[in-house]
Amino acid sequence: MLSQNKIKHLRSLGLKKNRIKEKKIILDGKRLIDEAINHKVKIEYIWINESLKTNEKDDLFINKIKNNKIDFSYEKEKDIKKISNTKNSQGIIGLMSIDNFYNEDLKNFGNQIIILDQISDPGNLGTIVRTCAWFGVHSVILSENSADIFNDKCVRSSVGGHFFLKNLTYLSYDEINNFISSNHFLTLCADLNGDEIGIKNIQKKWALILGSESHGVSNKINFDKKITIAKQGEMESLNVSVATGIILNELIN
Amino acid sequence: MLSQNKIKHLRSLGLKKNRIKEKKIILDGKRLIDEAINHKVKIEYIWINESLKTNEKDDLFINKIKNNKIDFSYEKEKDIKKISNTKNSQGIIGLMSIDNFYNEDLKNFGNQIIILDQISDPGNLGTIVRTCAWFGVHSVILSENSADIFNDKCVRSSVGGHFFLKNLTYLSYDEINNFISSNHFLTLCADLNGDEIGIKNIQKKWALILGSESHGVSNKINFDKKITIAKQGEMESLNVSVATGIILNELIN
Repeated sequence: MLSQNKIKHLRSLGLKKNRIKEKKIILDGKRLIDEAINHKVKIEYIWINESLKTNEKDDLFINKIKNNKIDFSYEKEKDIKKISNTKNSQGIIGLMSIDNFYNEDLKNFGNQIIILDQISDPGNLGTIVRTCAWFGVHSVILSENSADIFNDKCVRSSVGGHFFLKNLTYLSYDEINNFISSNHFLTLCADLNGDEIGIKNIQKKWALILGSESHGVSNKINFDKKITIAKQGEMESLNVSVATGIILNELIN
Repeated sequence: MLSQNKIKHLRSLGLKKNRIKEKKIILDGKRLIDEAINHKVKIEYIWINESLKTNEKDDLFINKIKNNKIDFSYEKEKDIKKISNTKNSQGIIGLMSIDNFYNEDLKNFGNQIIILDQISDPGNLGTIVRTCAWFGVHSVILSENSADIFNDKCVRSSVGGHFFLKNLTYLSYDEINNFISSNHFLTLCADLNGDEIGIKNIQKKWALILGSESHGVSNKINFDKKITIAKQGEMESLNVSVATGIILNELIN
C-alpha cells in the first residue's frame, strides 16, 4: 500500500533537483510504461488504480509486468491521483530508473550528435527527442542551462522517444567546445541567418546545434557552419522542434 | 472601464461556439497584438493594465495604437486578469475580428493547400499554422471535426502565423473531395505507410493532407498518393507539426 511517506517521496520527483539526485522519474500511463518495458528500461515499481483490477490471467499488461519480474500493487484511486503528473491520470504509474541514460564517456557518442542549448520549453524538448528517435540519432548533449530532459511534460511529449536515447549528458560550453574540436565533428549551427541547408547525406561525423527560440545558440559555442531553412513566407521563425525535423531529414535521408 | 457584463462577454469567447457566432477572438499579449496591427488585422479594442501606463508620447506601442485609430483604455489589474487566457498575463488584451479570415470562395485558394483532418491538439495546430506561414502556404482547409484554429492555445502556438492566413474554411469530407477533384489538385496524404517523399519542387497544384496522430487521415478523403518520411530509427511516429515541416520543405524548397 502507498504510505503517506511514499506518496510524499514520489511527488518530490516532480522537482528536477530530486530527479537528478535520485536518478529516478515517474512514468505516467500504461502506454509509456509498456514502451519502457519493451526497451528493457529498469522499472522499479508499478502502482495501479484498484478499479482497473481484472482477471489477471487474461490481462496481457499484468502478465508482461509479471514476466519482467516488476513489483506492482493495486492502490486507491485517490492515492494514484496524488502521485500522477497529469490532470486525467490513466491510473497506472511507474517508477523508473534513469541512471543508465547518462553516459559521461563521450567516446561512445558516435558520429551523429545533437547539441541542445538553452531549450527551455519541455514540450519542444520532448518533441526533439521523439524526432531524434525517428531519425536514429541516439546521442544528445544539453548545455547546462537547458530544461531537464526528464521533466514529465518532456517525457510525455516524446511519447517513448526517451527510451531510444543511448548517450545523454549535460556539458558546460567549454566542455562542448573541447569535445567537438578534439573529435573533429563538422559542427552545424541552426540559425535564422545562415546558408540554406544544402547538405545531403554528409559522410563526415557531424554535430547539429540548436538553440532556444528566444535566444538562439550561445556565441560561446564554436561551430563550423551556420545553416538555415529556406523561407518562402514572411514568418519570423519556425518552432525549434520543426526545424530539428527538417534539418535531420536533410542530413540523414 | 470594463463592466462586469463586458468581462463576462469577453470571457465567453473562450468557447468555440461563441467565437464562431461572433467571429471575434481575444488576443493576449503585446507581441501578438503588435503583429496583428502590422498585418492590418481589424482590432476592435485594446485593454491595458493601468500599472503599465507610461508617458504616452514616448510609448511606441501606444502611438502605434493611436495611429491605427484603435480604441483603448487602462484597466485595473484584477479585471485584466479576468479576461486573460493565460496564467501570467502580460497585461495587454485585444479584441480581434476574425471575419476576414474565412473565405467560402474556394476559387481563391491558389495552388498550394493544406488540408487538416481531425487535428485535435491546438498546440500542434498552431505550430502547423506557423510552419505554413514560414513556407508561404496561405490556404488551409479543416475537416469539420478538427480543433478550432482560433482556440487561444492554437493562436499562441502559431506566434502570429495566423495573420498570414489568406483562405480558411471548414469543409465536410464530401466537400473536400469535390473541391480537390474538380480543381485537379495532386493530393498527397501524409501516412506512416506510404512511399518515401521523393517529391522536390513539384510544379503542379497540390494539396497536402495531414491527419491526427491517433487516427491518421480519414479514409473518407480521396487522395492520389500516400507519402511518408523515411525512418532510420525505431520510433513509431513523428509529431504531426514536425512531419508538416519536413514535407513542406521537400515540396517547396
